Amino acid sequence: LKLLPRVLKAARNPDTYLELFGRKLSNPIFIAPIAYHRAIHPDGELATMKGAAEADSLYVVSSFTTTPLEDIAKNAQTNLWFQLYVTDDRSFTRELVQKAEDLGFEAICVTVDTPVVGTRNRQKRSGFVIPENLHAPYMIDATSSSVINTYSQQNPVTWKDIAWLKSFMKVPLLLKGILHPDDALMGIDHGASGIIVSNHGGRNLDTVPASIEILPYITERVNHRVPVLMDGGICRGTDVIKALALGARAVLVGKPICYGLAMAGHTGVCKVLQILQKEFETAMTLCGVSSLAEIDQNLIWKINR
Amino acid sequence: LKLLPRVLKAARNPDTYLELFGRKLSNPIFIAPIAYHRAIHPDGELATMKGAAEADSLYVVSSFTTTPLEDIAKNAQTNLWFQLYVTDDRSFTRELVQKAEDLGFEAICVTVDTPVVGTRNRQKRSGFVIPENLHAPYMIDATSSSVINTYSQQNPVTWKDIAWLKSFMKVPLLLKGILHPDDALMGIDHGASGIIVSNHGGRNLDTVPASIEILPYITERVNHRVPVLMDGGICRGTDVIKALALGARAVLVGKPICYGLAMAGHTGVCKVLQILQKEFETAMTLCGVSSLAEIDQNLIWKINR
Amino acid sequence: LKLLPRVLKAARNPDTYLELFGRKLSNPIFIAPIAYHRAIHPDGELATMKGAAEADSLYVVSSFTTTPLEDIAKNAQTNLWFQLYVTDDRSFTRELVQKAEDLGFEAICVTVDTPVVGTRNRQKRSGFVIPENLHAPYMIDATSSSVINTYSQQNPVTWKDIAWLKSFMKVPLLLKGILHPDDALMGIDHGASGIIVSNHGGRNLDTVPASIEILPYITERVNHRVPVLMDGGICRGTDVIKALALGARAVLVGKPICYGLAMAGHTGVCKVLQILQKEFETAMTLCGVSSLAEIDQNLIWKINR
Amino acid sequence: LKLLPRVLKAARNPDTYLELFGRKLSNPIFIAPIAYHRAIHPDGELATMKGAAEADSLYVVSSFTTTPLEDIAKNAQTNLWFQLYVTDDRSFTRELVQKAEDLGFEAICVTVDTPVVGTRNRQKRSGFVIPENLHAPYMIDATSSSVINTYSQQNPVTWKDIAWLKSFMKVPLLLKGILHPDDALMGIDHGASGIIVSNHGGRNLDTVPASIEILPYITERVNHRVPVLMDGGICRGTDVIKALALGARAVLVGKPICYGLAMAGHTGVCKVLQILQKEFETAMTLCGVSSLAEIDQNLIWKINR
Repeated sequence: LKLLPRVLKAARNPDTYLELFGRKLSNPIFIAPIAYHRAIHPDGELATMKGAAEADSLYVVSSFTTTPLEDIAKNAQTNLWFQLYVTDDRSFTRELVQKAEDLGFEAICVTVDTPVVGTRNRQKRSGFVIPENLHAPYMIDATSSSVINTYSQQNPVTWKDIAWLKSFMKVPLLLKGILHPDDALMGIDHGASGIIVSNHGGRNLDTVPASIEILPYITERVNHRVPVLMDGGICRGTDVIKALALGARAVLVGKPICYGLAMAGHTGVCKVLQILQKEFETAMTLCGVSSLAEIDQNLIWKINR
Repeated sequence: LKLLPRVLKAARNPDTYLELFGRKLSNPIFIAPIAYHRAIHPDGELATMKGAAEADSLYVVSSFTTTPLEDIAKNAQTNLWFQLYVTDDRSFTRELVQKAEDLGFEAICVTVDTPVVGTRNRQKRSGFVIPENLHAPYMIDATSSSVINTYSQQNPVTWKDIAWLKSFMKVPLLLKGILHPDDALMGIDHGASGIIVSNHGGRNLDTVPASIEILPYITERVNHRVPVLMDGGICRGTDVIKALALGARAVLVGKPICYGLAMAGHTGVCKVLQILQKEFETAMTLCGVSSLAEIDQNLIWKINR
Repeated sequence: LKLLPRVLKAARNPDTYLELFGRKLSNPIFIAPIAYHRAIHPDGELATMKGAAEADSLYVVSSFTTTPLEDIAKNAQTNLWFQLYVTDDRSFTRELVQKAEDLGFEAICVTVDTPVVGTRNRQKRSGFVIPENLHAPYMIDATSSSVINTYSQQNPVTWKDIAWLKSFMKVPLLLKGILHPDDALMGIDHGASGIIVSNHGGRNLDTVPASIEILPYITERVNHRVPVLMDGGICRGTDVIKALALGARAVLVGKPICYGLAMAGHTGVCKVLQILQKEFETAMTLCGVSSLAEIDQNLIWKINR
Repeated sequence: LKLLPRVLKAARNPDTYLELFGRKLSNPIFIAPIAYHRAIHPDGELATMKGAAEADSLYVVSSFTTTPLEDIAKNAQTNLWFQLYVTDDRSFTRELVQKAEDLGFEAICVTVDTPVVGTRNRQKRSGFVIPENLHAPYMIDATSSSVINTYSQQNPVTWKDIAWLKSFMKVPLLLKGILHPDDALMGIDHGASGIIVSNHGGRNLDTVPASIEILPYITERVNHRVPVLMDGGICRGTDVIKALALGARAVLVGKPICYGLAMAGHTGVCKVLQILQKEFETAMTLCGVSSLAEIDQNLIWKINR
């Protein structure tokens, strides 16, 4: 995927501001939902939240958070969204959604691509396990205190559940994990306020397209009816501008955040975001665009031909 | 070849049942015909049969079996098919077919891609030879007790022989080793009940397409007139779903069975099959399909565009 | 990119002469503008000029020259062009252009692809810095004696500046750093006398096409209205003939000149140019062309089909 | 380039016979012209001729033979052709052609792709030189006894020379070194009896297509008006069948012959040819063809779709 920059029209300081679901955001680089932050750094989700705030980035908290939502929310100095796994205990799910809304989470991203765990050979071979003393409070079965295995749901989430969630949810509902353009349309028909293109980091179904490969087919089909976001594969500033050029409104960054968190807690998270933001601004300037609105397919080689 | 999964419609326990030639089979992952099982494990074909039964898999016994068909058939607790090399001694071939039918083998797969042995450089360089004390009873010339070299037939099998076989064969006849779409059609015209797409593990003619590459052209041409099966290259569950999405009714697995047999006899064969079955079910769930009938080209990226 | 040579029409000594902006030049292989020659060899730009003269090559002097233009010009025995960075101090830029014109530089190449420095990871990781005792006299702020950081312009060069430069410039103005065909057309509309296709050696915006990839789209769009030159990636004679076959009038060579300069001063520069010229003549003969005018797309495989 | 074999129609012993310029030849695998056989083995061209005869292969003797044509011809037990470099001394060329004709060489292949020597970096880097005591008698200038440097002709061979050669040549004239389809047609218009597609082993102009890549475009353009042969890249039997499927009447083999000659003189040459012939017959049988006439584009995947 190659960029075809324009010249002699650069603004020195491009504007990365965007508006999403009525909120003004300073840039389109968000923190993707990631499970078990405390397995990465003892400060866990609080460090990520602090790093996000320092870099002025939106942070999507995972259902597998190892920190209570209250603790994250009460100190939050940045925009927060919540990622939701619908569990077999639907009343628990309803309470969790309402708690998140009450605490000020501004949108809910429902993960739709994980009815069962994929065939994770690498994870198995490396012998990865969650440390015993780590708890994900919202993935514990309230009645039995045992961990809810999302990946072993007896009653997987379906389109019917989306309608049910819409019936009481007050904040925008996004579907996270869409790859098929037909599902993007079905999502809109079921009331989704946004679509997050994602292949779950390539760890669910194997041999699927990269998010950026399928993105343009989805944005073309969605045709601006709702915002489309993209999760997966963002490693540098030119990746961000390409995703936006292909129609994404914002991107979610996962693994680089983990690396930053592991290296230096909140400082590392902030630094990773700032590098990406700086690289993205440089890419905008070198492409001759001054605002996100000017980023379009004309910047991508071959597509504009 | 990439998958484009559907979401929010998964069944927790997808149904892998299929019906083929009037038989109900619990899953579409079969054991391909493989010569000389006793060169791999001392329990030979009996171990493979036992492993197949434990995993509830159909087993296609090779003409190069090192175990008499009677011994395999009398203890069989699973569906058995027989793979046939037509030999220069046609009356021997006729007797062998009738013996297999009498013993309960439910279909005959006639290998059509091996009039001579291919240029097997790797086999030659590795110095591979069949151990001296191993015998393949149905590849011995009855009159001279010498090994019939299928690969050196003076009178190679032709379309005329297919008509001849059809004249007395009671069970379905499948043609194994079809790569050219025109041959698939000719096969149907000559009365074949099914087509097995195969490149003989890449060991006959070199530089041919992979089975999965040519499969969609053959299924398109056959257009549901007879079942098309695919042999070759199946290594994990997503390979199975791709073959079925491209029109195969079932797949035949060879090398992984050899590995399982070599490692742990019938237990190894069973374990290999169960891993493939489990991965295939996971792939079905993650693709949002509940039965084999729902698997179609819409799951493959680029073909459905 | 493959060549499809013609036979039985070769001239023993092909003519590499071309005419550009009214000047006769003996060959289409020019020296690209390169900053800080004295960081490569103590003789710096004077060595390059001498090597260029010995090989009868046109030399484009960089704004980042470490040798005063007067010193280069007064001994020049070859055609000289000047590469211009428009600085925040526009009056300084005007004076610099007029000085270059007065000294006999025959054309000005305005770099248009560098409003900010790109994300140069390799340069950063290697720890590259300009030696302290090196000065680029035309990149010093006249009022403060500090280095002008072109890459940190507060007032980046725009199309308006091109019009302003045209208002007083007497020699042909070329735009260096065009990748987008639309910008080539805009350049012509703003009075550019020529277009130099370049991706700045791949060091500005990352993941852009190679110059040779985008060249045919630009020459097709420009359609002979002005000469198109190509900078970047020229390593051997067949590269030159391919660029010309795709519509370039001449090519600019950068890195190979650096290697020659570093190895052996002016002798090295001359040797590099002579090798390229000899290889180019050999390629012409083997392609069956006797003059630059005979080099066209018919020599490129796939494009002429 | 993939083969798509046909089944159930194989002949046990396919017929590799062909007729070319009125001669019956037992197989389409010829020995390409190669310079300086004595640099490879002390028995030189005589060993090659003997090996060719043992394998019943046509042998194209090079102008750079290190053995007099008389010595090769007088013991010849196989079909011989002669490869001609037209030299600056045209009367010498005429005498050489007439000598070859008188000695029974049945066709003359005029090399048309070498007006100058290419940029042979590998040859230069390896320090390759012809041993001093080796002589190529037909590349010595008769008047001065110095070596004629074909590659430095003052008067390169052109279409006019082809007409001149035709004026007195009695045997068929083939043009060796055609890559451009337009040149194939021009050759026919100038009276060539055959076309040899070749890129001179990739050692003349660099970055040209492989012979097999361009072959189908040439055979399509020639459309059976004259036989097209292919030189270059033949390493195994399936390469031969692919070339014939794409329209070549025969192939010329170079490097493998050198290896055989270097290893074991005439025995090595014969063995290399027999391996290729056996592999080719095996490929024919596995593709279901019984004679060369049955080999066509239908055997190549993608082209027949």
